[in-house]
Amino acid sequence: MRVGLLTGGGDCPGLNAVIRAVVRKGVQDHAYDFIGYRDGWRGPLQGSASRLDIPAVRGILPRGGTILGSSRTNPLKEPDGVRRIRENLAKDEVDALIVIGGEDTLGVAARLHEEHGVRCVGVPKTIDNDLSATDYTFGFDTAVNIATEAIDRLHTTAESHMRVLVVEVMGRHAGWIALHSGLAGGANVILVPEQRFDLDEVCGWVTSRFRASYAPIVVVAEGAMPKDGDLVLKDAAAHDSFGHVRLSGVGEWLAKEIESRTGKEARTTVLGHVQRGGTPSAFDRWLATRFGLHAIAAVRDGDYGRMVALRGPDVVRVPLGEATARLKTVPDALYAEARTFFG
Amino acid sequence: MRVGLLTGGGDCPGLNAVIRAVVRKGVQDHAYDFIGYRDGWRGPLQGSASRLDIPAVRGILPRGGTILGSSRTNPLKEPDGVRRIRENLAKDEVDALIVIGGEDTLGVAARLHEEHGVRCVGVPKTIDNDLSATDYTFGFDTAVNIATEAIDRLHTTAESHMRVLVVEVMGRHAGWIALHSGLAGGANVILVPEQRFDLDEVCGWVTSRFRASYAPIVVVAEGAMPKDGDLVLKDAAAHDSFGHVRLSGVGEWLAKEIESRTGKEARTTVLGHVQRGGTPSAFDRWLATRFGLHAIAAVRDGDYGRMVALRGPDVVRVPLGEATARLKTVPDALYAEARTFFG
Amino acid sequence: MRVGLLTGGGDCPGLNAVIRAVVRKGVQDHAYDFIGYRDGWRGPLQGSASRLDIPAVRGILPRGGTILGSSRTNPLKEPDGVRRIRENLAKDEVDALIVIGGEDTLGVAARLHEEHGVRCVGVPKTIDNDLSATDYTFGFDTAVNIATEAIDRLHTTAESHMRVLVVEVMGRHAGWIALHSGLAGGANVILVPEQRFDLDEVCGWVTSRFRASYAPIVVVAEGAMPKDGDLVLKDAAAHDSFGHVRLSGVGEWLAKEIESRTGKEARTTVLGHVQRGGTPSAFDRWLATRFGLHAIAAVRDGDYGRMVALRGPDVVRVPLGEATARLKTVPDALYAEARTFFG
Amino acid sequence: MRVGLLTGGGDCPGLNAVIRAVVRKGVQDHAYDFIGYRDGWRGPLQGSASRLDIPAVRGILPRGGTILGSSRTNPLKEPDGVRRIRENLAKDEVDALIVIGGEDTLGVAARLHEEHGVRCVGVPKTIDNDLSATDYTFGFDTAVNIATEAIDRLHTTAESHMRVLVVEVMGRHAGWIALHSGLAGGANVILVPEQRFDLDEVCGWVTSRFRASYAPIVVVAEGAMPKDGDLVLKDAAAHDSFGHVRLSGVGEWLAKEIESRTGKEARTTVLGHVQRGGTPSAFDRWLATRFGLHAIAAVRDGDYGRMVALRGPDVVRVPLGEATARLKTVPDALYAEARTFFG
Repeated sequence: MRVGLLTGGGDCPGLNAVIRAVVRKGVQDHAYDFIGYRDGWRGPLQGSASRLDIPAVRGILPRGGTILGSSRTNPLKEPDGVRRIRENLAKDEVDALIVIGGEDTLGVAARLHEEHGVRCVGVPKTIDNDLSATDYTFGFDTAVNIATEAIDRLHTTAESHMRVLVVEVMGRHAGWIALHSGLAGGANVILVPEQRFDLDEVCGWVTSRFRASYAPIVVVAEGAMPKDGDLVLKDAAAHDSFGHVRLSGVGEWLAKEIESRTGKEARTTVLGHVQRGGTPSAFDRWLATRFGLHAIAAVRDGDYGRMVALRGPDVVRVPLGEATARLKTVPDALYAEARTFFG
Repeated sequence: MRVGLLTGGGDCPGLNAVIRAVVRKGVQDHAYDFIGYRDGWRGPLQGSASRLDIPAVRGILPRGGTILGSSRTNPLKEPDGVRRIRENLAKDEVDALIVIGGEDTLGVAARLHEEHGVRCVGVPKTIDNDLSATDYTFGFDTAVNIATEAIDRLHTTAESHMRVLVVEVMGRHAGWIALHSGLAGGANVILVPEQRFDLDEVCGWVTSRFRASYAPIVVVAEGAMPKDGDLVLKDAAAHDSFGHVRLSGVGEWLAKEIESRTGKEARTTVLGHVQRGGTPSAFDRWLATRFGLHAIAAVRDGDYGRMVALRGPDVVRVPLGEATARLKTVPDALYAEARTFFG
Repeated sequence: MRVGLLTGGGDCPGLNAVIRAVVRKGVQDHAYDFIGYRDGWRGPLQGSASRLDIPAVRGILPRGGTILGSSRTNPLKEPDGVRRIRENLAKDEVDALIVIGGEDTLGVAARLHEEHGVRCVGVPKTIDNDLSATDYTFGFDTAVNIATEAIDRLHTTAESHMRVLVVEVMGRHAGWIALHSGLAGGANVILVPEQRFDLDEVCGWVTSRFRASYAPIVVVAEGAMPKDGDLVLKDAAAHDSFGHVRLSGVGEWLAKEIESRTGKEARTTVLGHVQRGGTPSAFDRWLATRFGLHAIAAVRDGDYGRMVALRGPDVVRVPLGEATARLKTVPDALYAEARTFFG
Repeated sequence: MRVGLLTGGGDCPGLNAVIRAVVRKGVQDHAYDFIGYRDGWRGPLQGSASRLDIPAVRGILPRGGTILGSSRTNPLKEPDGVRRIRENLAKDEVDALIVIGGEDTLGVAARLHEEHGVRCVGVPKTIDNDLSATDYTFGFDTAVNIATEAIDRLHTTAESHMRVLVVEVMGRHAGWIALHSGLAGGANVILVPEQRFDLDEVCGWVTSRFRASYAPIVVVAEGAMPKDGDLVLKDAAAHDSFGHVRLSGVGEWLAKEIESRTGKEARTTVLGHVQRGGTPSAFDRWLATRFGLHAIAAVRDGDYGRMVALRGPDVVRVPLGEATARLKTVPDALYAEARTFFG
């Protein structure tokens, strides 16, 4: 039995832990062979692969990133993409493929399995925690810890100086990182893409916080938008050297708006890629390791077209299609809980 | 409406986050009054209490420990305990009691509610994660992160020197911390109380690791026992100045046994109370905050005799009795997963 | 003997450690009384003060910020400022003043001592490490650790993706934080205020790094300027809602310039106030504690008009005037050392 | 020009940073060749070496341990040791040797240089900070940070429970780690090898701390000894399975003594090798990098028989012999400063 592996999409702490668990379990218990494809779907598309054995995965558990590299290449959009992949898999004598990725990468796996009979098992990966078929994905806990630690540090200044402190965190379409880190860090305002915000309301929370003699901390997801946002951000977007709207500027933009409306000085922290780098948290390593072990179990059982998923404390298997069916966003009720701590 | 709060048992990162969430939500949304009882059940027993308002809970979210203090006092074992508690609750005009604690503390709450009609809502707390009615308890993730970081650091030495490195972690009756931190840290042996270990097998793993030119890291829960442990530990216990068996010595004992059987030098790290101190992880603050919000919701609904619990990503309510019904230990199947990485 | 204390200027991890050491030593060994003035020089100017005793300083050692508050108030610029200060000190029966602050705050202390006979002892404080009279100031090591940890995390992405990663760190006039964190973090380019940078040279380093198949990490101090900077930044400054040049935008500006010149995607991290918050590093607590102990020794010796300073591993006393004589900037030779690792 | 490198003695965070700086600077600026000897002096003794180039040192800056391995082999005690080393250096065409190590390793270098004309440059390394010729050595700051973080976490329990918390840290002959981490962590008792402690006095501090309603934290260096220690420890040593005195047990021994004398429960944390592992602190990476750059400068200048050293913020060169002349221990005056915070 020979199993191929690939990692696609943005990097995410825990990818290496999955790879290690897959190879350790597969080699030791089942004597499988492993091939690692380079750079996501580009690997099987171009036939770029190399052997993976136990020495190759030694020491990678605590390391962020992926030893296989990654890309956003979509073979379904490449001329002859499916045929080339099938030929390369056949040439490499690969019997099954373990695909580690997010919505896009797994969507390809689902179609290759359903329409072309490629034997795929999926492992969900998204730092944003926005896949609906699993309670959590690895990488998310690490990102939340990093953002929370940054908010913790800002409280010091918030206690000594009368400044508004704005922290921009990741989350283009789902506000999970903002919600969790904002709650854990004790932020005074949390803005998520799921709920368009009202600048006047934000300034109200800021002002009420100052009245209690504390400086406010505002956590904003990079994809959060004001209620009249299209107009405003088109204007902000003019600053972008590439001519397209750059959502990553919302933190700085918000700080300026709060300054001009409340008359209070505002400072911005933009965490950027710091959130997706470095060693995974213990939870993410544990989850990624278990996902790897269960992915091999699915291969052993010949249970293809499936994705491993976390349900409560258990790892289960769900149809691959489910992973890409729906974006998991922050529900209104959960955001309402967080509002308890605003202002 | 006046609500009493108490925290019982060993301290656990996240207790303060529960207290803060309860008070913030209760005061702001429901205009409840709050009374904090000192030192667990000793507070209502002795009538030692003080007002809790929003200023009192400011800034406590990131702090370990509990501003209410804690104790292991069991009022059911005190003369006239129940009567004194009921009198003090009546004197303080307390309408409902939110009890934050582990098996013992919640067991008292369950009996007071069932047998004496005291209106209690429980919040589960155990750093060992051994309560069966909830997927996770706060404090556990923090402890696992601390233990994992220690194991990470030992890998450096394990790569440069040919020594056996033994790490003793918490867990008298359940091996969750050892299992999770051992898996996350890439330990070569993990020993838990649920599975009596065979010293020869342990030494076999140690030796096979050396053969691969790496030094082994052995994670051992403080409650782990060798197969012929009763005899052995009675001997080790002789060193104890109090004359009773002291399980906390298993790490040092194991290091010496491995040294004498394999001829390899062994060094021990005993993390001790370091694991239960300091600021809670982001996950634990999030979980504790949500537990607090949902405990207040149960009070608002008049839903007494219940405990909040985590099920997947959701907080639910379960009967208080369930919390204390059964110790949640590491199942064989999960321990078998971990064995993939032994040796 | 009654001693007054105040903390002035921007907050800096370690201020509380100084206050604690001063009070502990002064009360226990010399039975001094202490008064804490609020918000820097505003305190003695407005007579805003309160008693400081041992319970008041309990638990503050590991906390960032300052329990006394801070401000940038300069009493020499206030009408009648000196007279009001002297009257308030007399009214409070303060025999000596321990002044903890940076160039501005200590400059006031120096003039009050020299020209008006106010008995002052200074403790140097600047997160930027730019005071010439001392080897190091507390707060700096903490800031460097935080910035280095952020750079560490970015390396993960730098290994998996082909992006330019720009990190903006503190340092308006001196590049010490950029230099130390850039060296410690293994940055590929470090830009400091002391050396105007050439954009073409920066892009050259970026490109050569990509040629070696790694993504470059660029650390830039907030006060760094391009060679033709006045023109360029006047343009960038147009984005500022207050109409003045906002140096804090240099990271984002640089990322855009590199993108447009090299065609490579660039992402920015702006650490902002995160660098000056949170718990002080062990070194900073040790240094701040020793500064506090030696400040009290100067008071005991009646050695006024002096500032404590670090020289090698020793704490010494230097004239207060020295502290403010000259900005300590990164020397050419040291920057040349760092260039070894560029590109 | 071909330069050999070796690392000897116990591992210490920062060794890899020295190696990287030496090779980067030497190759890029001087076009030197490099050879890395394996496992300290065992490498040149047995002729075990391999080429070191820039790709070989990539990514090692943040990693603890040493890519060259280490040992305590002393070639002066090996039959024909000096001759074999000289032959191997000649065979490898090594023109100069950069020796990174502590007292023992550098002592060999000093003798090889003085008596046998081997061209050596030394780089000081000791986690214990006990080399007299340099203000600080790398590794020390990392160890102090780790120990301080552990003490920080214990404060949480110290506030909630009435227990004595004993932390054993490294330091067999010098108490620098105990002193710095104890001061930075706010310990209530600090015991160092330089000052024999009186158990009654220790128990007095413990009791007085309890009287103030806080639990005491006792930091003890592994080499600390009670006043009547020879007798006591001979007894404790009986527990040792190897039959020799095991100083690493002082923490557990002390906890038991305090328990039996004060009647208060005591718990022990033994950090062990955790203190010398993991990623170096920013300061240690900066110091190690600069030591590496200056070692190459000494080679370039033909300035052999010298060791690089830190003096204030500057790196200087001192005679190799100085490094091993005298153990740098904690002076009485410094220990007296720390006593301010006891009890």
